[in-house]
Amino acid sequence: MPNSHNPCGEDSLIARYFKPLATDPGAFGLVDDAAILKSSGEDIVVTTDAVVEGVHYLADDPPDTIARKALRVNLSDLAAKGATPGGFVLTLALRSNDDAWLKPFADALGEDANSFACPLLGGDTVSTPGPQMISITAFGRVPAGRMVSRTGARAGDRIMVTGTIGDAALGLDVLKGGAAAAALTRDQDARSYLIDRYRVPRPRNALASAVRDHASAAMDVSDGLAGDLAKLCVASGVSATIDTATVPLSAPAAGLVARGAVAIEALLSGGDDYELLCIVPEARGADLVAAGRAAGVAVTAVGMIVPGNEAPRFLDGTGRELVLKRLSYSHF
Amino acid sequence: MPNSHNPCGEDSLIARYFKPLATDPGAFGLVDDAAILKSSGEDIVVTTDAVVEGVHYLADDPPDTIARKALRVNLSDLAAKGATPGGFVLTLALRSNDDAWLKPFADALGEDANSFACPLLGGDTVSTPGPQMISITAFGRVPAGRMVSRTGARAGDRIMVTGTIGDAALGLDVLKGGAAAAALTRDQDARSYLIDRYRVPRPRNALASAVRDHASAAMDVSDGLAGDLAKLCVASGVSATIDTATVPLSAPAAGLVARGAVAIEALLSGGDDYELLCIVPEARGADLVAAGRAAGVAVTAVGMIVPGNEAPRFLDGTGRELVLKRLSYSHF
Repeated sequence: MPNSHNPCGEDSLIARYFKPLATDPGAFGLVDDAAILKSSGEDIVVTTDAVVEGVHYLADDPPDTIARKALRVNLSDLAAKGATPGGFVLTLALRSNDDAWLKPFADALGEDANSFACPLLGGDTVSTPGPQMISITAFGRVPAGRMVSRTGARAGDRIMVTGTIGDAALGLDVLKGGAAAAALTRDQDARSYLIDRYRVPRPRNALASAVRDHASAAMDVSDGLAGDLAKLCVASGVSATIDTATVPLSAPAAGLVARGAVAIEALLSGGDDYELLCIVPEARGADLVAAGRAAGVAVTAVGMIVPGNEAPRFLDGTGRELVLKRLSYSHF
Repeated sequence: MPNSHNPCGEDSLIARYFKPLATDPGAFGLVDDAAILKSSGEDIVVTTDAVVEGVHYLADDPPDTIARKALRVNLSDLAAKGATPGGFVLTLALRSNDDAWLKPFADALGEDANSFACPLLGGDTVSTPGPQMISITAFGRVPAGRMVSRTGARAGDRIMVTGTIGDAALGLDVLKGGAAAAALTRDQDARSYLIDRYRVPRPRNALASAVRDHASAAMDVSDGLAGDLAKLCVASGVSATIDTATVPLSAPAAGLVARGAVAIEALLSGGDDYELLCIVPEARGADLVAAGRAAGVAVTAVGMIVPGNEAPRFLDGTGRELVLKRLSYSHF
């Protein structure tokens, strides 16, 4: 009579690979069914994101990159909400107990948990005959009432993004042998750069407190800048205009666009950027840019929030409106 | 360039089915990337458990029962830790967007969220070509430092369990056409009772504050009483003796054992009970029984914590030790 889940406790897989990560006192060394998250009156910010093999990562992606991506997509949400990481719980759905996969996965997860100060608090391991899946729920803390929402954007606010846009979508295209792969056959450095950007997001947690101090609304860009901006506008009851010539591109991405190998539209609607989309009152824009400079993260103004409820408009350098075939990817 | 996860926001599936459940102010109507869990200094207890189609539930189980089980296995963990439910986040890995499945699933989840006062705070929906999976992370609150752990059991403490043991394992056996199914061919009431116990756990949240007040250690019985008790003993550095004649059985289970159709050993190592295993100092046993009576939940003493580090011993009515082939089910 087979039954239910493996608890965290004496389960040998959890003990062997993940117990060393559970250094927080609230994790009880993973010997209990539950973990403790302390609060001294701060709000606990909760976010949950899962990555599925073949959907959010490729089956032959290195396991260390899969671990980092699974955690970092959640860290990125915390950064966008202005929250300081507090810990995470992990559900692993695995086909098998494969040391060659689990060891580098757990090691990389532990490294990221350390470097982002976001300790493992608990977990559950289940077996599945299907694709593997890593579901993480992460916790952050903000002073009570200070979480940055999607709903605070006001007409006249600046639209700012961190880092560069479109690299991860190009990296996936390279891995799948698409147009970017063909155009970069001889440029191994660019290929490697883009693939790395797809596999290992750079969540902007260093900017979390600046986002809290300066942004009227924010979210992370996970499903494409165009689609995510549209969602933020709906939540805030506003519209937006983006000057696509100002959207920050990496050198490889800019090169591909300049050569006509890739359209800017594909970068605007591509996903997996995990950069921050910050809506900032005009008077605070310079503060956010300065905070970015101090943290080594580019912050670029790309447009303006405007009144209205139509979808955001994307204008090229000549003021012509781009037509995006789709705003972002959707599973269903 | 397909990409990542569906955010909670405007995703139509989440909006259509799950937004009505997100009544808590901290859920922001599911329009944000994150939720807020308030704390006024209490500890936040976090637990995470996933159920996988074909592993933890059967593909043709009614969707309303799957929803209830997915939430209740987590509620059961909160009850065992002495925590009051505070909310949960949901990750759904689905093959398709099937209204005939999702509607009753969401309705039942909402009913349970209401009746257990554990509101939906956020979620993520991903597509999978493989078996469906529901991963839930649930939150509870306890006064600071008062979570009931697995580590507090002391020699001389009583071992107590709620409800009855083994019914869910028998229910699964009935569904799979095993020995219990054969023995109950003509007893539709017993079959229905046992199947229901497998599909829809009865978490003992009504006893959470009594567990906090009286138990020195506790956990929920999810992977079989024998195996779970063994884990608790390891965590507490003690051993245990169980008088199997005192283990509470339902009338159908007792009938099957009496007729020799099923061995008591199978019930002790079967899973999915989702009853509470409470370790109680002798002087507090009567208090826990009384709290159970007030809540309409049977609480039964089944053995004693003893010194040592050997595995728990299971003695029959004559003092003979039972040999359990396996303590509980394990995936790997």
